[in-house]
Formats: sequence, C-alpha cells, structure tokens
Amino acid sequence: MSLNPLREFVVSLTRLVESGATEPRILEQGRELVGQLVAKDDWLPEAFAQPHPQYYQQYLLYADPQERFSVVSFVWGPGQKTPLHDHTVWGVVGVLRGRERERRFDHQADGSYREVEAGVLGAGGVTAVSPSIGDVHIVENALDDQVSISIHVYGGNIGRVSRHVFDAASGEARTFISGYASDVVPNLWS
Amino acid sequence: MSLNPLREFVVSLTRLVESGATEPRILEQGRELVGQLVAKDDWLPEAFAQPHPQYYQQYLLYADPQERFSVVSFVWGPGQKTPLHDHTVWGVVGVLRGRERERRFDHQADGSYREVEAGVLGAGGVTAVSPSIGDVHIVENALDDQVSISIHVYGGNIGRVSRHVFDAASGEARTFISGYASDVVPNLWS
Ligand SMILES: [Fe+3]
Ligand SMILES: [Fe+3]
Ligand SMILES: [Mg+2]
Repeated sequence: MSLNPLREFVVSLTRLVESGATEPRILEQGRELVGQLVAKDDWLPEAFAQPHPQYYQQYLLYADPQERFSVVSFVWGPGQKTPLHDHTVWGVVGVLRGRERERRFDHQADGSYREVEAGVLGAGGVTAVSPSIGDVHIVENALDDQVSISIHVYGGNIGRVSRHVFDAASGEARTFISGYASDVVPNLWS
Repeated sequence: MSLNPLREFVVSLTRLVESGATEPRILEQGRELVGQLVAKDDWLPEAFAQPHPQYYQQYLLYADPQERFSVVSFVWGPGQKTPLHDHTVWGVVGVLRGRERERRFDHQADGSYREVEAGVLGAGGVTAVSPSIGDVHIVENALDDQVSISIHVYGGNIGRVSRHVFDAASGEARTFISGYASDVVPNLWS
C-alpha cells in the first residue's frame, strides 16, 4: 500500500488554493481531484479506516498549515449517521468504500429546515457543499451491514471550525466544533 | 501537553520559506525559531520520543507538502551516534532533552576528512549545518545512561534526500536515504 495518491492530492490541492482560485473554480477542480483520489480504494492506512461501535469517526489525514484546507477520512459503522448540520466553508466529498446517503435541507420561511433532495453515492461518487450551493444536510451510511468510508475536503481546518447542528422542525441551532478522532495523521512520505 | 509550540513553529517556518528568504536569512531566523521550540520540553508526544535499543530514531514531525522543509525528532539511546555524514541542504538543530556531542569535519587535500571542531550542546542549545557553512559531521548522544532528543529542521524532505556517509580515513563516500522511523506524524490540531 502506498500513500502516493493522498500525497499527490495534497500537493495538487495546495497548488490550487495557493493560486488564489475562486470558490467555483476550487469546487470544480476539487471535485475532479477528489474523484481521482477515490477512484481506487488502495491507499488509506488501516489506522484511519477504523470504525467506532457508536459514533462515525473523523480522522484528519492532512491539514494545510495555514488552515486553508483539510482532508478527513469519515468512517461510518453500519447505519451510523450525522445530525442535521452545516459546514460554513466549501466541502467536497468522495466515497471511497461502501455507500453513503445524503439528504439536503433548505431553510424555510417559518424557520424550519425541510428536506429538498436525497441521493445515494456509491464508491467513486463525488458531491459538494458550501454556503453558496447548499450547506445543510444529513449524511449516513447507506449500508446496514458494513462500514462505509468517504474522503472529505474542506476549505478550512474543519475539526476546528465553529459551525452548527439544527433541529429540523424548530430550526433551532446549536454551535459545535467537531475535533478529530486521532492525535496522529499519516506520514505522507513513509 | 499541547502541540501548540510545534504548530506555531510550522506556521512560522512556512511563512519564512514562502517569503523567498535567502539561506543566510533562513538560518538566522531558523535558529531563533528552533531556539524557541526547544526552550521548553513539554510538547513532544511520547510516540515520537521512543528510543530504539540499537539505532537512533528519526521521527518525522512535519513535512512541507512542497518538500521545502521538514521537522524531525532525533531520539538517541544512551551512547548512540551517527556515522560521518552530510546533508546537502541547510539544517538547524536544537537540543530538546539531554546532551548532544557534535564533531565537525573538513575535507582534506588528500581526500580524507579531518575533525576540525567539537562541541557539546545541552538542552536549549542550537546549531546549524549547510554546504555553505560546513555540512559534514558526526553527532552522538553525549550521555551514556539516558536518552537525548534533538529537533532538526532541514531545507528539504530530509528522509527522502539522497546524501552521503563517509569513511573519514579514505574519504570514500556512499550514498544513502535515511527514511523515517514511523508511518504516522502528530496531528498538529488534536
Ligand atoms: Fe457534512
Ligand atoms: Fe547531521
Ligand atoms: Mg505559498
């Protein structure tokens, strides 16, 4: 197993954010790069693919030292899912293993959030979020009997970003900071 | 224990190399930054401070994605030492724990290497190497009965740099690539 695909991804994304690209350009290019990264499931080290019996896990794989972007491995145990939440920064998500269901929500005039779209992504599939294209969703493992893993890239150090979970019916928001599941990240040059 | 000192160091050094500073400027500023980093021995995670019974260990702590610099924890068991070697890139070394002895060598007209200087650095001490200021030395743990640890910063991804070990008497050179002791690095944001 070689970390080359992850390292090449990090190098390319560093170049992209350093180019001063606009968000639409970053999302377009980012989708392409994430698509390449998840096209082959042969590079994620086992330590960053471990599910937790109760909670989906967020393993930091790389964070830009200037916190302009971060790369995270989301590991979903059977049936695990997020609450309704936002990101406040752009994000590109690619499915590396298994299947993921995403449900998109819109803020309604009465303050509530209503589901407006739902879809399932298989391995190799890519999607994106951001405040400008739709930022509020629920994501879940579409498989009841096995682990799914997706690779997420965000326009910030997502584990440290103050963002929100929502109660869909009332629209009530609580701020949260997700943190990361591990105190180590892969050595890209090992 | 907080990784803040290491994270702040990485951010500052990234800024320094991005400024396009010349090598003398990088060495001057780098010595200051390394001095601050090793002034307090309260941040290095245990996993990156583990000695090996036979060999000194080189744990990558951070590598710039563009490989413009790397930060490495050298962990010396009692009495362990390097062969005579060069670096081919600039390097700044600070002692975090224990004591380190450095012996500098010059290339002689007859092809051999001769010791021209030797010194011992205690915790908090900082030194530098580079092809322009002297690049060939032997480094060893100055303590026979305990571990010493130094933090090294290099102007490249040192674990991947092709460089040399020398036979002092004959001057014979062998190329080597050191690699790294671990397949993970600290999560600077954990
Ligand atoms: Fe999300
Ligand atoms: Fe050296
Ligand atoms: Mg730059």
